[in-house]
Amino acid sequence: MTAFSPRPTEPKFSEPKFSTGRTGSLPPADSRERVSSWMKSFQDRVCQGLEATDGLGTFKQDAWERPEGGGGRSRVMRDGNVFEQGGVNFSEVWGKDLPPSILAQRPEAAGHSFYATGTSMVLHPKNPYIPTVHLNYRYFEAGPVWWFGGGIDLTPYYPFDEDVVHFHKTLKQACDRHDPEYYNTFKLWCDEYFYLKHRNETRGVGGIFFDYQDPSGVLYPISYPGSQMDAFDPKTATPAAKHSVKVGKVPDRSWEDIFSFSQSCGSAFLPAYTPIVEKRKNLEYGERERNFQLYRRGRYVEFNLVYDRGTIFGLQTNGRTESILMSLPPLVRWEYDYQPEPGSPEARLYDIFLKPQDWINWKA
Amino acid sequence: MTAFSPRPTEPKFSEPKFSTGRTGSLPPADSRERVSSWMKSFQDRVCQGLEATDGLGTFKQDAWERPEGGGGRSRVMRDGNVFEQGGVNFSEVWGKDLPPSILAQRPEAAGHSFYATGTSMVLHPKNPYIPTVHLNYRYFEAGPVWWFGGGIDLTPYYPFDEDVVHFHKTLKQACDRHDPEYYNTFKLWCDEYFYLKHRNETRGVGGIFFDYQDPSGVLYPISYPGSQMDAFDPKTATPAAKHSVKVGKVPDRSWEDIFSFSQSCGSAFLPAYTPIVEKRKNLEYGERERNFQLYRRGRYVEFNLVYDRGTIFGLQTNGRTESILMSLPPLVRWEYDYQPEPGSPEARLYDIFLKPQDWINWKA
Repeated sequence: MTAFSPRPTEPKFSEPKFSTGRTGSLPPADSRERVSSWMKSFQDRVCQGLEATDGLGTFKQDAWERPEGGGGRSRVMRDGNVFEQGGVNFSEVWGKDLPPSILAQRPEAAGHSFYATGTSMVLHPKNPYIPTVHLNYRYFEAGPVWWFGGGIDLTPYYPFDEDVVHFHKTLKQACDRHDPEYYNTFKLWCDEYFYLKHRNETRGVGGIFFDYQDPSGVLYPISYPGSQMDAFDPKTATPAAKHSVKVGKVPDRSWEDIFSFSQSCGSAFLPAYTPIVEKRKNLEYGERERNFQLYRRGRYVEFNLVYDRGTIFGLQTNGRTESILMSLPPLVRWEYDYQPEPGSPEARLYDIFLKPQDWINWKA
Repeated sequence: MTAFSPRPTEPKFSEPKFSTGRTGSLPPADSRERVSSWMKSFQDRVCQGLEATDGLGTFKQDAWERPEGGGGRSRVMRDGNVFEQGGVNFSEVWGKDLPPSILAQRPEAAGHSFYATGTSMVLHPKNPYIPTVHLNYRYFEAGPVWWFGGGIDLTPYYPFDEDVVHFHKTLKQACDRHDPEYYNTFKLWCDEYFYLKHRNETRGVGGIFFDYQDPSGVLYPISYPGSQMDAFDPKTATPAAKHSVKVGKVPDRSWEDIFSFSQSCGSAFLPAYTPIVEKRKNLEYGERERNFQLYRRGRYVEFNLVYDRGTIFGLQTNGRTESILMSLPPLVRWEYDYQPEPGSPEARLYDIFLKPQDWINWKA
């Protein structure tokens, strides 16, 4: 690891913080320090856990600064035993205006300077039997508003039901420690968000996803173009024609409650993912499986460049391109008009794993 | 080649055509048939020329229909002698409303049904010394308005000055047969359009690009978010801080004039490109050149998915995804924080070929 740049000593912004609101809903005076400090130690723990799992590869760090305010530390592993490429990013940025894509959802933040910190990760394993995984947890403050967001989702290339069930059950346990509504709502939101409209496919088997979690207690507060939220059945999480979703509300959440929930989600990552890696990393595979993996990685690229809000936010805020696009796979194939052979494992991926499913009550 | 679906016999739309306007500016009664018929014969000629150049690969055709109206014929060559993958698409679509991205530029078309036809092509050669090439010519009618658009641009992986000069001179000759203003304006527009803001790079060495060519005679009629038109010096075509470009006007152009110009541009493709292929196709290359080619192909993907209006139009109009994304390369690499070695051919590509240059008056 190279040394990373010291914390800036100048105040991050000069505006007074949160002069209005209920006491319980106010962030503590050291909110930014506490979240960014957790985000960094989370990045450390994840990197250590992944190095142990890989057994060979190590993360190399690039520390960078953003001219408009802030910076980060990007860590990349290449050509490991298990991970062909993996990136784990921490960043902390501040500036004058949030980009339009966020202001549309949080108009109260307009005209205020903002602060944002987060950790994000994408891992591209070499073995096609190990799924790709993505994670992102983040925190925003801007004028009178603050919120937490994030999530984690799994993208298998070959269909192992038990792996997906394990992944979802681990996430559900983390959610259930905080509120019984969380898992169902955020699982649904994940299915909705990681959806490739032009392919009519989910990106993978989902996980959980949430954004704009604040003291209002509204779990699914937004509506955006292309939202599929009313196209899924919340009980079975299978597509249902115009089924109206009742999204819960958790009133009286404090800043501490939501921060604690985010931390639980983050801490669930290693137990949710590494047992799958251990189980699959020594399975032998051939050219057919490798080719299919490279082909399916193309969907990852399509999603990240066409739909992903994190990517759009990064590019709109003059973020560090190399860190933003670190999520793209090291090697990718496109093939005109590929169709999986009926009855094959590849076809089962399309038929079952690229559609929303109820993995908690799964019976193969 | 498989048979392609017959022309639909139902009227393409029921609205009366062009009841107002100067006589010379009106399309002829058979405008759609004439353009689409030319587009198809152009596709045929291009495919024949490319098969002859390749010597091994042949184009396979998929004919498809669009449920909302229209269809097309997609032709793909794979694993040829020269071309690792090449796609040449013809399409002809019609429907109720143009997508918002186009209506923003042509508000007069709102509320009217539209007709659009075009031919587009991307070729990904195997040999890294042969540039990738892209072409797209198209024609629109919607209510009281009609226009032609299109262009062609070259994306080299290794810097051969004479190839780029040949390409640009051939295009300039085609333009000059119609108007002395065309080449300079459309060369500049091409540099502006095929620009990756997040990389601060042009996609390649450009060529010509135009859109919204109609009887108004305005050559560069639009202004859109991210437009770079005033950031380039029109004489040297090198970036110049806030240099204001004077864009010419060609009044009294008839429909026939602009159609004829589009045809000349199309016909310039084979003479502009195939001599470059012939000159480079037998050059030997190694792993280094292949790796660099695969890496640079990533920029093609980034451009097409993040910026390209043709791709956005296609996805917004429920186009055929496989045909739209046929432009994506067959194999692509991403590498975190790649930097070319100073003094290498790869560095020369970045320093000279990924910035706008005056290729007509080029002195190496």
